[in-house]
Amino acid sequence: MADDIRAATRTARIASRVLAQASESDWNAALEAMALAIESRSDEILAANAADMEAADALLAEGKLSQALVDRMKLSDLKIANAIVIGVRSVAGQPDPIGHTQASTELDKGLKLYRVSVPIGVIGVIFESRPDALVQIATLCLKSGNAVLLKGGSECRNTNRVLGQILVEATSGLPGIPECWLHVLEAREEVQAILDLDDCIDLVIPRGGNELVQHIMANTKIPVMGHADGICHVYVDRWADLEKADRIVLDAKTDYPSACNAVETVLVHESVADEFVPKVQQTMAEAGVSLKYDAASLDIVGEGDAATDDDWSTEYLDMVLAVKVVRGLDEAVDHINQFGSHHTESIITEDKASASKFLQAVDAASVLHNASTRFADGFRYGLGAEVGISTNRLHCRGPVGLEGLMIYKYVLKGDGHVAGDYQGDDAKAFTHETLDEVWRPYSGA
Amino acid sequence: MADDIRAATRTARIASRVLAQASESDWNAALEAMALAIESRSDEILAANAADMEAADALLAEGKLSQALVDRMKLSDLKIANAIVIGVRSVAGQPDPIGHTQASTELDKGLKLYRVSVPIGVIGVIFESRPDALVQIATLCLKSGNAVLLKGGSECRNTNRVLGQILVEATSGLPGIPECWLHVLEAREEVQAILDLDDCIDLVIPRGGNELVQHIMANTKIPVMGHADGICHVYVDRWADLEKADRIVLDAKTDYPSACNAVETVLVHESVADEFVPKVQQTMAEAGVSLKYDAASLDIVGEGDAATDDDWSTEYLDMVLAVKVVRGLDEAVDHINQFGSHHTESIITEDKASASKFLQAVDAASVLHNASTRFADGFRYGLGAEVGISTNRLHCRGPVGLEGLMIYKYVLKGDGHVAGDYQGDDAKAFTHETLDEVWRPYSGA
Repeated sequence: MADDIRAATRTARIASRVLAQASESDWNAALEAMALAIESRSDEILAANAADMEAADALLAEGKLSQALVDRMKLSDLKIANAIVIGVRSVAGQPDPIGHTQASTELDKGLKLYRVSVPIGVIGVIFESRPDALVQIATLCLKSGNAVLLKGGSECRNTNRVLGQILVEATSGLPGIPECWLHVLEAREEVQAILDLDDCIDLVIPRGGNELVQHIMANTKIPVMGHADGICHVYVDRWADLEKADRIVLDAKTDYPSACNAVETVLVHESVADEFVPKVQQTMAEAGVSLKYDAASLDIVGEGDAATDDDWSTEYLDMVLAVKVVRGLDEAVDHINQFGSHHTESIITEDKASASKFLQAVDAASVLHNASTRFADGFRYGLGAEVGISTNRLHCRGPVGLEGLMIYKYVLKGDGHVAGDYQGDDAKAFTHETLDEVWRPYSGA
Repeated sequence: MADDIRAATRTARIASRVLAQASESDWNAALEAMALAIESRSDEILAANAADMEAADALLAEGKLSQALVDRMKLSDLKIANAIVIGVRSVAGQPDPIGHTQASTELDKGLKLYRVSVPIGVIGVIFESRPDALVQIATLCLKSGNAVLLKGGSECRNTNRVLGQILVEATSGLPGIPECWLHVLEAREEVQAILDLDDCIDLVIPRGGNELVQHIMANTKIPVMGHADGICHVYVDRWADLEKADRIVLDAKTDYPSACNAVETVLVHESVADEFVPKVQQTMAEAGVSLKYDAASLDIVGEGDAATDDDWSTEYLDMVLAVKVVRGLDEAVDHINQFGSHHTESIITEDKASASKFLQAVDAASVLHNASTRFADGFRYGLGAEVGISTNRLHCRGPVGLEGLMIYKYVLKGDGHVAGDYQGDDAKAFTHETLDEVWRPYSGA
């Protein structure tokens, strides 16, 4: 089994090198072929999905699957047409991320260096329940010239198998598209087998709940792009416009409470706590959000649920919000840097000095001023299709678009240049002049 | 012990957040203070180094240390002045990498997004023998706003301890520079303790031989910036100018044979093998390089050492070169992609189509046309001070300058914007207009 997966990654590596050299029209033609195949074979997809749903309903009745997970598994004609097929075509519509010259330098006369974007290589994707994730990530990988190994949850095995077959068959034999660029793995034991292949797989992307992500991060040496937690804060400063603050906290909590960029704790400056805490209490009560108060805020509202220390590091993913009064900006920043997950943090203030200090001092992928944490998202940030949101401190951070699936190579063009000429007596000097040139294969080539 | 190191990384994390907010003049003043302290305390450094050298000589006599390692340990007045002190000042002279706006986008009226470079956070550095590596990497980390834990080899413990003290004392109390930005760890057991802290340390940089690098890569989940091998090739194409090829192979092999970017195997197109193989044989014999021939090249030269399959994946780091005849460009590319370490690969040809194909199809950090592999180096590439050379496929690849110690954060400025306004009926539309604006803290702040 593990050997099969190793063999699959080997063919994926070779495929990735071929795929990287296709042209933009090749990649986009392959994406359109996938969209058409999904449309024309939607009956097969729905039949497979119905089989999975039947098994899932039984497991749901036995309490072995959650309702939320089962809900996410279900496909319909509408979902295939509106979410999956439109998604594939929108990936095709994204700008081509491959072959961009990021920098160019003349090292010396006739010796020019270019830094050019290239695909990472082989991406492993581990996802649960949502079969649409399979299509989304496969198309993002193709558009970025990466080969991909996909491993879905066993609860969706029939749907995933059919979707994988459709994508493979739709792209088979197309110009520029190698066989084996896409592997859909099935057996249950394979997750750890994938995670062990740190010499073959360049990047793992998990798509699923916190538990899955944490499991993956804890069990592999392959870099994992993603985030385990989204413990996000809104800090309502002494100089906040409290109407703005109220509207932003409401949006950040209730727009989509189970999203990673939903707010979990609101921090309130003590000078405005007497006014703002009752205000947020009323707004949240009307919205159906329950509150957990620290001692100072509980004092203000008189009665309510007391927060414990665990609340500061809990991602509720639910209509629950913790409230804490702080003595000032510094305490807010310290609290966020200690308990936050470095995901998305917002300050509400009309004071520019406070805003600047917060934006600089808070250590997070996204720092916001007078805006809802819910904006931290690839589509809203204008990145196009979203690969995920990363709280890593290397490669990419925050919402990640196609650029996150790229690395670069250096291309150096010379005419017989040797390094020895730039050393010792009579050494030639480097010019190191920044160029504004784009690397292209030599014309006529 | 492990708890001490965990505590040290915790203070380093806090220090990194303070350090990141210093100003360029703070960082540069700290670097100059370090340079001055090293100059004025060079007697202490030399005394400590003499003690290490005495112990090392005894171990050398017992065969427990290699001559090369002992040579690299030794400091002198000249080395301190010329290499270490000048190195510190050259880092100070590098452009400030922090706070650059990499991209800016208007999401909607009054809602502006900036992607701004920030330090990674906490860097762990593990190095052996060269005490100058301690100073170099500490100064690169300071300049890039990163806190750093340094762990040198026990053979240099006295020198490293004194150097660490000098750097800590020189920067203590300076404006913008927190205590604890630099930790020099001593005890022998600590390497694994560092490697286990994947929740505390963001990046490990190894400085030392292949064995050290491979050990580190195999024993940590922390991302490691570096390369284990440098198996580099020069491919002499059918359309090569053989004089150029000869000069380039000579430089790539002999300029510094123990460097990672030295060539290990030369691949020769069969059409030019009868002419080029004897030529390279003569040039290498004159330079004192011994050759290992594949069957076809051995046939041409008549007698010599036969290469075995192991030679294709051996990094000699020595005056040894393997020679292999290939049937064409495709075989050369396949050989390189299979046996190379994705470090630096060069084609020698006057044919533009061959050059373009090679530069695109070879999967390596640096791909070169008509130039020596020895150019793959941070200084020669114009990156300034070099952090290392990476064969990773994430974050940074090839020679890495200060930019490799940076990541970014997103800064979003709004005026009460909420995500709910951009959904449903009457949804506001995002403008997603690319701006040419630089993020600065609000003026007056």
